[in-house]
Amino acid sequence: MVVKLWLRMILFACSALFVAMAHATFPSVPSETYKALNIDKSASPKELHEALTKRYLDPAQGAGKGSHAQYWEPIPMSMYFDPTTFYKSPTSPDEIAGRNDCVECHTDESPVWVNAWKKSTHANLSKIRKLSPKDPKFYKKAKLEAVEKNLRSMGRLGANEKLKEVGCIDCHVDINTKKKADHKADMRMPTAEVCGTCHLQEFAERESERDTLNWPEGIGWPKGRPSHALDYKANVEVSVYAGMPQREIAEGCTMCHVNQNTCDHCHTRHEFSAAESRKPEACATCHSGIDHNDWEAYSMSKHGKIVSMMGDKWNWDVQLKDAYSKGGQTAPTCAGCHFEYDGKFTHNVVRKVRWANYPVVPGIAANITSDWAEGRKDSWVTTCTNCHSERFARSYLEFMDKGTLHMLAKYQEVNRIVKGLYDDKLLTGQTTNRPDPPPPMKAGYSQFFQLYWSKNNNPSSLELKVLEMGENDLPKGHKGLAHVNPGGWTYTEGWGPLNRAYVEIMDENSKLRHEMELQNRIAKLEKKRSGLFGGLLDADSTEEKISLGGLGGGMLLAGTIALAGWRRREKRES
Amino acid sequence: MVVKLWLRMILFACSALFVAMAHATFPSVPSETYKALNIDKSASPKELHEALTKRYLDPAQGAGKGSHAQYWEPIPMSMYFDPTTFYKSPTSPDEIAGRNDCVECHTDESPVWVNAWKKSTHANLSKIRKLSPKDPKFYKKAKLEAVEKNLRSMGRLGANEKLKEVGCIDCHVDINTKKKADHKADMRMPTAEVCGTCHLQEFAERESERDTLNWPEGIGWPKGRPSHALDYKANVEVSVYAGMPQREIAEGCTMCHVNQNTCDHCHTRHEFSAAESRKPEACATCHSGIDHNDWEAYSMSKHGKIVSMMGDKWNWDVQLKDAYSKGGQTAPTCAGCHFEYDGKFTHNVVRKVRWANYPVVPGIAANITSDWAEGRKDSWVTTCTNCHSERFARSYLEFMDKGTLHMLAKYQEVNRIVKGLYDDKLLTGQTTNRPDPPPPMKAGYSQFFQLYWSKNNNPSSLELKVLEMGENDLPKGHKGLAHVNPGGWTYTEGWGPLNRAYVEIMDENSKLRHEMELQNRIAKLEKKRSGLFGGLLDADSTEEKISLGGLGGGMLLAGTIALAGWRRREKRES
Amino acid sequence: MVVKLWLRMILFACSALFVAMAHATFPSVPSETYKALNIDKSASPKELHEALTKRYLDPAQGAGKGSHAQYWEPIPMSMYFDPTTFYKSPTSPDEIAGRNDCVECHTDESPVWVNAWKKSTHANLSKIRKLSPKDPKFYKKAKLEAVEKNLRSMGRLGANEKLKEVGCIDCHVDINTKKKADHKADMRMPTAEVCGTCHLQEFAERESERDTLNWPEGIGWPKGRPSHALDYKANVEVSVYAGMPQREIAEGCTMCHVNQNTCDHCHTRHEFSAAESRKPEACATCHSGIDHNDWEAYSMSKHGKIVSMMGDKWNWDVQLKDAYSKGGQTAPTCAGCHFEYDGKFTHNVVRKVRWANYPVVPGIAANITSDWAEGRKDSWVTTCTNCHSERFARSYLEFMDKGTLHMLAKYQEVNRIVKGLYDDKLLTGQTTNRPDPPPPMKAGYSQFFQLYWSKNNNPSSLELKVLEMGENDLPKGHKGLAHVNPGGWTYTEGWGPLNRAYVEIMDENSKLRHEMELQNRIAKLEKKRSGLFGGLLDADSTEEKISLGGLGGGMLLAGTIALAGWRRREKRES
Repeated sequence: MVVKLWLRMILFACSALFVAMAHATFPSVPSETYKALNIDKSASPKELHEALTKRYLDPAQGAGKGSHAQYWEPIPMSMYFDPTTFYKSPTSPDEIAGRNDCVECHTDESPVWVNAWKKSTHANLSKIRKLSPKDPKFYKKAKLEAVEKNLRSMGRLGANEKLKEVGCIDCHVDINTKKKADHKADMRMPTAEVCGTCHLQEFAERESERDTLNWPEGIGWPKGRPSHALDYKANVEVSVYAGMPQREIAEGCTMCHVNQNTCDHCHTRHEFSAAESRKPEACATCHSGIDHNDWEAYSMSKHGKIVSMMGDKWNWDVQLKDAYSKGGQTAPTCAGCHFEYDGKFTHNVVRKVRWANYPVVPGIAANITSDWAEGRKDSWVTTCTNCHSERFARSYLEFMDKGTLHMLAKYQEVNRIVKGLYDDKLLTGQTTNRPDPPPPMKAGYSQFFQLYWSKNNNPSSLELKVLEMGENDLPKGHKGLAHVNPGGWTYTEGWGPLNRAYVEIMDENSKLRHEMELQNRIAKLEKKRSGLFGGLLDADSTEEKISLGGLGGGMLLAGTIALAGWRRREKRES
Repeated sequence: MVVKLWLRMILFACSALFVAMAHATFPSVPSETYKALNIDKSASPKELHEALTKRYLDPAQGAGKGSHAQYWEPIPMSMYFDPTTFYKSPTSPDEIAGRNDCVECHTDESPVWVNAWKKSTHANLSKIRKLSPKDPKFYKKAKLEAVEKNLRSMGRLGANEKLKEVGCIDCHVDINTKKKADHKADMRMPTAEVCGTCHLQEFAERESERDTLNWPEGIGWPKGRPSHALDYKANVEVSVYAGMPQREIAEGCTMCHVNQNTCDHCHTRHEFSAAESRKPEACATCHSGIDHNDWEAYSMSKHGKIVSMMGDKWNWDVQLKDAYSKGGQTAPTCAGCHFEYDGKFTHNVVRKVRWANYPVVPGIAANITSDWAEGRKDSWVTTCTNCHSERFARSYLEFMDKGTLHMLAKYQEVNRIVKGLYDDKLLTGQTTNRPDPPPPMKAGYSQFFQLYWSKNNNPSSLELKVLEMGENDLPKGHKGLAHVNPGGWTYTEGWGPLNRAYVEIMDENSKLRHEMELQNRIAKLEKKRSGLFGGLLDADSTEEKISLGGLGGGMLLAGTIALAGWRRREKRES
Repeated sequence: MVVKLWLRMILFACSALFVAMAHATFPSVPSETYKALNIDKSASPKELHEALTKRYLDPAQGAGKGSHAQYWEPIPMSMYFDPTTFYKSPTSPDEIAGRNDCVECHTDESPVWVNAWKKSTHANLSKIRKLSPKDPKFYKKAKLEAVEKNLRSMGRLGANEKLKEVGCIDCHVDINTKKKADHKADMRMPTAEVCGTCHLQEFAERESERDTLNWPEGIGWPKGRPSHALDYKANVEVSVYAGMPQREIAEGCTMCHVNQNTCDHCHTRHEFSAAESRKPEACATCHSGIDHNDWEAYSMSKHGKIVSMMGDKWNWDVQLKDAYSKGGQTAPTCAGCHFEYDGKFTHNVVRKVRWANYPVVPGIAANITSDWAEGRKDSWVTTCTNCHSERFARSYLEFMDKGTLHMLAKYQEVNRIVKGLYDDKLLTGQTTNRPDPPPPMKAGYSQFFQLYWSKNNNPSSLELKVLEMGENDLPKGHKGLAHVNPGGWTYTEGWGPLNRAYVEIMDENSKLRHEMELQNRIAKLEKKRSGLFGGLLDADSTEEKISLGGLGGGMLLAGTIALAGWRRREKRES
């Protein structure tokens, strides 16, 4: 087809480009990153690692506690979530241990660590060197040589030295060290730039997410987000994260938002099986749940089900790029679609991002037909045409966009209703029983913090309901569409729940408005009575004061209510 | 046991019958179908296929857009959902391609299609011919011969010709064609009758669902439904499907309701692995979710868990009928129970249907002890006694029926309460803020469309809640019972949620009734006041008008409310 | 580390103790049990089995229908749930059958039973005797010898007799019988003490749960509960279980609560695969759902996902204790952590219980830092340090405790609010429309029975909502923490839903209080009016009566409301 041919021509042009830049040390790392780091594409591994690491560790560019640091304190687990900032060597044992001592002692201390490591490639480098080209893991031989090249460039491996193993001490103390280490002084938790010393290509690809997610003007996401590369920053910049006193709840969010900091959420220690990290379940623990149910949507789709039915016949040991052609794979995995960009597979998983999970984010929906988004849609077409015709792919992507827009519109209609109640100060307890949240959270209508922090009538129930429509039901519906799971946007998740919430909110809106009317009628009766016996008040002004007072003031003086009404009137008049 | 022996005798009688009708070309196709098609059991494959196809493609008998066709337009994806009605050959490429060209070009264009096909039986017919009787797939040899017999009967294969392969061109252009085809003119999406040309037995079995689901008088289901054979018809006849403007939401339902149209939801393209389609996950994407959670119920049951724990030791390549005896299977799959009918396995999966998912459907519950339903229960006993004693099977089936009836009663009790509010016009906004839905939906109390369409106070929140009890919680509870997953009807789904909804509705009912009382008291006060100063109104009539006015009229003139009350009084008096 | 070394010393001391008590027949059975049974540790298998069985079958110690027996009747399925109490031999067939007859006839009658049994160890004892020490199942040889020793001790096997097989007749009639059996008189369903004849060690370990779960003073759990050993008792002692008329709903709970009675929920019949029962899915059907979602939490955690991704490479045939070291396991299963206690694996799974699922149980939270609970936490540290450092383990366990306490506090805050409404008689229909439940349920605020029984406004909606916070959301949040599934306590389950329920309850509380105020204003108006024209009532008393009346009295005489208010005043004054 025409567009397909056009895409192929682009791919061809790109490969030509790759040939032209044959001098690039890491051709899979996008130009945007070299530019952002202000280094040349021919930079040595050492230069690239240094430049990446400098940015990676810079608090001004996203490392560490973030701009709300003053509001929260780490807990003991924090040292494992953000080792750079919080990790300290343990206070025991006293042992000074060398390479082999680690393994020996920990065979008793934490045996499964050691068992897992013994199964890892790290513990079996000599086996890798001996692999025959027929072995599905043969590609690891070249990978090992690349690692050694990196280490040599950084002066960590002699010119003729071979790497013998990657043991405890390499990652937890110093790579390829020959020295002994003091548990109480020298221990570290390996952060991404430690892994990136050897696995520089993957580190650089991952870090390139900061550079390639270049949102157009007017979108509510900062550059490079959402992404794995800045997911910890994304976490600590959330005001309710920083301000809520229940640290162990807040840090539950952190537990997933640590890919910026460490690599072991996808590459679980200490086997670090690449086959494992390619499987869809590797993504499931984090990419699941009430507001980003990728796993539930995917795993219930035909795509996911075929993987779970047939996957045990496929060879997961082949490299990701060979999964379909040599591994026997016939249905998509998470990595199969999201690591791919125009035919190549890298650790930058955000190059085709268009909706970025949350259709309510300002600017996202309006942007979805921009050239920027259309270009990314074309990249999706390339992905889908591995298995589908271009017409099918384009039909479905249009379907996904339109379905998402329908859900957004349903949310927006009812959000206007609730906002109207808020503007009229009619939400329950709004003028009488709505304490401000602690800083850095900021009071306001339908704020994200209300999902995790509440006190008395902040938030009101309607406000939270409409907030959850936008933050939970709508993203879930979009995920259902994106992962081709019909129940995910039609009846079980998405539209069905949005419709239910709409109905409940419209019902309550009618009741609140009616309640206001009843109050007015009572006030009128009271005034007449007073008028009859006292004649002090003017009918119309009393009515307005009370109608604006809102619900929930059972315990308050009528004076407060009147005052609230008064303030609002002043505002409008000014 | 007595009944068991009795069942065995029936089975014996049946086999005797089969012997007697040895001349039947397709003995697994029920007599009901031959009768409905008005052809003899000795009809040739060609005659059977023609008769089936004629009915299959007849809009008057369920094909195509259905009776609400005027209300909805197809979207681009529709051509894949209902190819017979909507598919058009693509507008590019220009190529005229022969059998081998397809494969060659699509190895580049859509490589995974080709990879999957290369693994299929379709691409490996010569391997099938060479299978030894010890091979679990040996049964496919006979199947292939039967296919060739069908093709010969239909004049698509020479008398001595062997089928060499089933390639792209056979399904997408013309079976066993020797010609070249024009992408822009000759392409088709294979619908069930195309697959049924070769796989005539399976097509006929599937089509027989139309004939064997012969509901007794007074049941709310049309003949032959619910079934795979008419699932697209079931979809397009739903008024909200046709009438809702958000097509991409409505078409989400279609995405599962296409088994009438194509076979590839169970037999996924292009590997078409029979082993895959026998696995429970093959049914999961569609048979799951808020109103028919078969998958969730089954997969969490002991049955489902044993399959997931032990299934990797079983041989899924054996024919379904040999799964237990030769495949090593020791726990039931979806196909293992639902394809079975009195000891035989066919593609008619509705021969033991008794409850048909929705216990609220008129007549279903009353019918459950009829002779019709008892006969089908006996067939279930035959199924269950593969693994359980007859006493156990009967005890459990009684348990399932009674449990379902308890849940139905809970729903009915509270549905009467909400209906009472509706009859009294007390549902929120009922008389003031309840727009009619667009056609072909019809306004009314607690209508199915309200699950997907809503505007202002149509539906009211209580009405939707009770509707969801009947459409979602009750079916889920029944599914939990039917699939022996205790959490599925006791606490997590089913009874627990029904109890919760009951409590919430009863609470709101009390509040609405109380609210009416308060309104009356206010109205009385207002009238007295008016009486005091104006003396114009009669106390009792005012009170009634207002008490009937319902909630939600905050924005309306009192006159409308009074009018609504008036109309209702007129009706009652007439 | 210091504590780790300290733990190792304790373990060493324990092993020394084991050596010292080398004469103990079953060293894995805790002293507490020998003491409770009042037998010596050197008791013969026969003595131990007799003592265990006597207690096991004693209604005063937990067997049978329990203290609410008068309120409920068994249903047909009950004979399979509690065979000791309800099972009767079938009324057919007439056959008197010997050992081989069973298999022969049931190959027709219930073929999958027989297939499964043929795969079992029970049917292949001679294979077990021939296993080589290299076989992962070799341990079964010693197990078989131990079984024979038990049978000899009980006089069921000759001194030189070998057990040939365990066939239908052994379990369903009499172990190692040489006689024939009458279906109509001799059949039994094997209960735990029947299995425990051969598998005495496992039976004794399981029964020891009654003895080792020795709660300190002031905890709301009876000794030995919650546990598998007394899970049927736990079921029948629940008042709503006994009192609700919908037996098939109540018996849904029983379907899991039968581990006290039979062993086949974990060791499914008739293959009884040990490999199967070690897999996490073996626990899933029961340990899942709205109030104890262990499976959902675990299976979505990294732990669970690694098992599901990598488990097919592990050898599940090795003994549980060798799973990590010899089976290749690198992530925890249910059994891997919960069967383990200080390095040993037994069928007592409650020795590390601290929170026991329900943080709302009286005394539990206060106890969590007691020496008792700290000792059990130390045992958890031993478990976790198989794979993690001690510092990590302690940090996480502290994290879990604190996270749970945050959720408990959120629940308690809002529970006080609802209790306040109850105390003020303001819950919907509280004084007018709240029937008492049938016995043995007892009326009261926020009672467990309300989850399953409801009528009119018992319970009210707020009361049920707060009850579900404590019974469902809080346990789910705790489970999320305990199984390291962040979505399980942060956003999807746990805190998120608790926050939502808090907001909804606070909203409704404000509305109910405001409603009371409105009522007062109306009453004041009515009184004034009456005062104006009749002068009969005193203003203050009327107001109080009505403010106490609560909602929901729409259909009732005002007199009832006044009376309710009156009664309450009397109480307070007394």
